[in-house]
Amino acid sequence: MMMTKPEMMFRVAELEIDPQHLAAYRALLAEEIEASLRLEPGVLFLQALAEQENPARIRVIECYASKAAYEQHITTPHFLKYKQGTLAMVKALRLVEMDPIALAAKDGAFSR
Amino acid sequence: MMMTKPEMMFRVAELEIDPQHLAAYRALLAEEIEASLRLEPGVLFLQALAEQENPARIRVIECYASKAAYEQHITTPHFLKYKQGTLAMVKALRLVEMDPIALAAKDGAFSR
Repeated sequence: MMMTKPEMMFRVAELEIDPQHLAAYRALLAEEIEASLRLEPGVLFLQALAEQENPARIRVIECYASKAAYEQHITTPHFLKYKQGTLAMVKALRLVEMDPIALAAKDGAFSR
Repeated sequence: MMMTKPEMMFRVAELEIDPQHLAAYRALLAEEIEASLRLEPGVLFLQALAEQENPARIRVIECYASKAAYEQHITTPHFLKYKQGTLAMVKALRLVEMDPIALAAKDGAFSR
């Protein structure tokens, strides 16, 4: 189980992408997630999934070590590249702030 | 990054809980998640979060090694205890099948 701390920040981003640009959007998002985890100690997880029935509807589950880590994240070159590169591809964006109940994963699930 | 395989199953469960029973529901859900990860090799992650603005709205992000692992999961005593124990607490349940785009977490994020 993830030992959460009150200062951690959890969020679900719900996006609707222009289907014409979906492949390009997915590539930019995957690149941004890889860079964020590799370069930023305060980005604890980022998980992007697409709805099977409507792949243009994407959800990203986000966890940052603190609000400060998040504020730092959105100033990084890799985030700004993603944000600016995908602005015209995103038809709708809803950000839902979340609180953790229980988070658990197998050891190594994210490094296999 | 999580190395995903085509046979893996990803899902988001969106629940609305009767606010009167929210504390009991959360306890049963957390117990079920802990037992599932500990006892079932085919349950790769389960992450339960509540919306800050409406804590009775809960989302569970689920990942199973295969459809067979999921079918097994829903026959386990710990799942059945959760399912039967919470049936009257759940006002609405929507299951959204998902496909992975990119999933990444810090090493040890889920065992700290």
